[in-house]
Amino acid sequence: MKRLVLPLCAALLSAGAAAQSVTMFGLVDLSLSRYEVSGGRKLNTLSHSSNNLSRLGFRGSEDLGGGLSASFWLEGALTPDDGNASGFSFMRRSTISLAGRWGELRLGRDFTPTYLNDGWFDPFNATGVGTSAVVLQRSSSNSRMPFALGVSANNAAYIRTSNGLGYHLPAGLGGFYGQVQYALHEQTTPGSRQGQYQGARLGYREQRLNIALAAGKVKGANPASAVAPDVTSVNLGASYDFGVLTLMGEYARDRYVTATATFTGSGWLLGLSAPVGPGAIKVSYSRAKIEGAGTPTAQVMALGYVYDLSKRSALYTSIARIRNSQGALVAVAPSVAGRIGDASSQGFDLGIRHQF
Amino acid sequence: MKRLVLPLCAALLSAGAAAQSVTMFGLVDLSLSRYEVSGGRKLNTLSHSSNNLSRLGFRGSEDLGGGLSASFWLEGALTPDDGNASGFSFMRRSTISLAGRWGELRLGRDFTPTYLNDGWFDPFNATGVGTSAVVLQRSSSNSRMPFALGVSANNAAYIRTSNGLGYHLPAGLGGFYGQVQYALHEQTTPGSRQGQYQGARLGYREQRLNIALAAGKVKGANPASAVAPDVTSVNLGASYDFGVLTLMGEYARDRYVTATATFTGSGWLLGLSAPVGPGAIKVSYSRAKIEGAGTPTAQVMALGYVYDLSKRSALYTSIARIRNSQGALVAVAPSVAGRIGDASSQGFDLGIRHQF
Amino acid sequence: MKRLVLPLCAALLSAGAAAQSVTMFGLVDLSLSRYEVSGGRKLNTLSHSSNNLSRLGFRGSEDLGGGLSASFWLEGALTPDDGNASGFSFMRRSTISLAGRWGELRLGRDFTPTYLNDGWFDPFNATGVGTSAVVLQRSSSNSRMPFALGVSANNAAYIRTSNGLGYHLPAGLGGFYGQVQYALHEQTTPGSRQGQYQGARLGYREQRLNIALAAGKVKGANPASAVAPDVTSVNLGASYDFGVLTLMGEYARDRYVTATATFTGSGWLLGLSAPVGPGAIKVSYSRAKIEGAGTPTAQVMALGYVYDLSKRSALYTSIARIRNSQGALVAVAPSVAGRIGDASSQGFDLGIRHQF
Repeated sequence: MKRLVLPLCAALLSAGAAAQSVTMFGLVDLSLSRYEVSGGRKLNTLSHSSNNLSRLGFRGSEDLGGGLSASFWLEGALTPDDGNASGFSFMRRSTISLAGRWGELRLGRDFTPTYLNDGWFDPFNATGVGTSAVVLQRSSSNSRMPFALGVSANNAAYIRTSNGLGYHLPAGLGGFYGQVQYALHEQTTPGSRQGQYQGARLGYREQRLNIALAAGKVKGANPASAVAPDVTSVNLGASYDFGVLTLMGEYARDRYVTATATFTGSGWLLGLSAPVGPGAIKVSYSRAKIEGAGTPTAQVMALGYVYDLSKRSALYTSIARIRNSQGALVAVAPSVAGRIGDASSQGFDLGIRHQF
Repeated sequence: MKRLVLPLCAALLSAGAAAQSVTMFGLVDLSLSRYEVSGGRKLNTLSHSSNNLSRLGFRGSEDLGGGLSASFWLEGALTPDDGNASGFSFMRRSTISLAGRWGELRLGRDFTPTYLNDGWFDPFNATGVGTSAVVLQRSSSNSRMPFALGVSANNAAYIRTSNGLGYHLPAGLGGFYGQVQYALHEQTTPGSRQGQYQGARLGYREQRLNIALAAGKVKGANPASAVAPDVTSVNLGASYDFGVLTLMGEYARDRYVTATATFTGSGWLLGLSAPVGPGAIKVSYSRAKIEGAGTPTAQVMALGYVYDLSKRSALYTSIARIRNSQGALVAVAPSVAGRIGDASSQGFDLGIRHQF
Repeated sequence: MKRLVLPLCAALLSAGAAAQSVTMFGLVDLSLSRYEVSGGRKLNTLSHSSNNLSRLGFRGSEDLGGGLSASFWLEGALTPDDGNASGFSFMRRSTISLAGRWGELRLGRDFTPTYLNDGWFDPFNATGVGTSAVVLQRSSSNSRMPFALGVSANNAAYIRTSNGLGYHLPAGLGGFYGQVQYALHEQTTPGSRQGQYQGARLGYREQRLNIALAAGKVKGANPASAVAPDVTSVNLGASYDFGVLTLMGEYARDRYVTATATFTGSGWLLGLSAPVGPGAIKVSYSRAKIEGAGTPTAQVMALGYVYDLSKRSALYTSIARIRNSQGALVAVAPSVAGRIGDASSQGFDLGIRHQF
């Protein structure tokens, strides 16, 4: 996603140091949302981040000469519906980088390579009621998993990892981009490597085409634990801009390995976004299932329109419908779910988003 | 209250977007305070926010053309006595707005219309030892309630609400100003609407006179619950600037409705502020009671002086005395109270406040 | 330590107030670290703040005329390895000051005078694997105490105090600097003064010599409590810049007074830092013991190199070895310790630090 930022000031530092630009940036997104389980509960809410993720951040970079630079990035999630009632932190990203012509070495907390395709190639940016089945299948953290199989998804390092070491390819490789990432487990219990992550992503982007392949692995609590199994993920995402519309799609496969069994979750998404008037229509269809044991399956159909008030501000609306079958439990909002197998649910967002 | 802010920078955005000004603003206020219950405990503290509420915030606005603008406001409370030991958040205000000649639509966490008169028409700004009996009567959150009646005040949406939708009248209505606000309850328990708020405020301000009427209602946990009853509030505040002094006053009425009984809390305040030297003297008398059941009554007498070092910085001192009768339990500081019915208490603040 | 800051902007305030400069500043420091107990556990981590303390802050000052100024300082710790998973606050420093030719009156949360020598006269700045035995002896908060004596160190006001009133000498006293500090206990339990602190520091600095003496006392929970005894601290630190290297040292003495016994912890440090290439070598040896009851003793030997990429950015590495004897339990990292008496431990940091 593109982000506009506000340079606070390029100002001369004391002690003869070189000029530096520190940037404060962020996004506030709130929507009136309605969630409804077919034949069941309804809920109206003021939801945050239904079009894009609300955040506040500070970042800066220093030119060290010779093509080298040092930089930092501190970014935290905002929940403007309740004023960050559970506290503000910098868990979206907290990194320090050293970069040169050889690429970028990045330390700290950051997105995993294996999550990026889930967000980039979803016209709904993996948020709001239009969030794809690929993401919902994986997101046990919000109770939306279709897991009737007695195993949690071990979401620990699905979206981000702490304690990470990353290397990113430099720009100017003829359209190729990529990264590898390793996150330390920091476990002191002998034998445990819970939270250890290793992953990589390689992509190619030119004027109209963008395609990226990612793979990674996160260690669970224990090989014998069903609650937090090892998870191996592979996904491939692509988009193509035809001018009148951009088509995008993703295929993802996650293997959950416990002592007693191995489950495979797989999903795919097909989406498009098309400029219409001063904004864009967005459509997606996605489908995810857990293979074996009845094969619980969830489908998400979503339709949205974003009306750009400016490059930074927009009104938007989305509607989505989720269908569960074979015991799947995915719902458009966890709080309204009631975890009723095979129940369908509908969601609606009407909101405003402002970047700064 | 007027607030001075520091424009960080009007800077050109990347990608050809229009110029934007993001403002960082705040206030730090600390005082040496002494609280004393007559014939009982004494406590010396370093207290925050005895003259005005300590805070740190970020806000910005974007001109969308045609009189339309989008803006955000993120503001969190500071407790500089302990460095925000319980964490920093944006619970003072977290909003996104769309504004035009027709007024302002505001979403997020914000003050309730029914609280505003309690702060605006109190010369002590509803903080410090001079906080009025009107506010103390309502503020169960700080244990200062005169409730010997086995019912809590349901303070959930007294000062602010999360999940709010507000509409504010535009400027230029010949002195009239006003707002309506609705906050969603977001309860998933069937039948519960706890936290739902609806309220409105209408005021008129010209050169010397300012007057405002507010009314609102917040839903309790359950009609049968004495712990969190429904609360209906009405209040009227006014001030008049005679030149040599500004007189102000407020009358407020709160109804607490439980399954078994209805209590009415009422209170009024009379105050003045008068410029003396490079600052101002502040005086207030306020009185609040719970009607019926013995009618516990609390009175607050407060006297203060603010010495302006500049438009942004001030030294100040306040003394106040609280009298309880008929079993009221209000105290100048909750920690020193001991909840001894009918005990009087005294408080003293000597502090410094700095806005930025 | 010297800190470079970024003036956000000197901007004209509204309402005719004078110009003000608000500064945002900070530091991000992450390292790959390895901790190892001899014959025992090993741990690899991504550690924050191994060269200098990661932080984010906002501060500003207003010239009030006549040599008087008002200022604020809000600074919070960053843990960029996990994105401040336990929340962001301003517990490093939260103060408001009034300053003039007579000095500075400072209110709020701040460093204690008795801690400052522990950081200033340690070439490793009291952080990372090179942290001196003087500090480790005192820091029960991180379980690194050599206390086999059944008494905690009462760390409450070791590094900082909340609720503090400080006075700092003005500049221009021929090299003398100093401060006194008093922190209110704010206890409401009769008889308890837990957390009350009083301390002072006096120093002298000229071109090559810097020397400072500090003394202070913090009240424990209760005279009869072994868990949080009263602690009296005295320390003397000094450094001398010979040009080719700077020698520094500290001697510190802490008395822990409980109802049943009095323990004395003492320690000293000898260190040096010497410019080598575009950076500096750092060496320190420190030793601390608890007198009586077997006299548990810990020694720390540390060696480091900081390679300056610029005035604000650096790469660094440190190695350190800790030796325990007579039952001391100090370890290079608390999580790896296992609290095995007399075990040695080794630590290694390789990191990057960036100030802004």
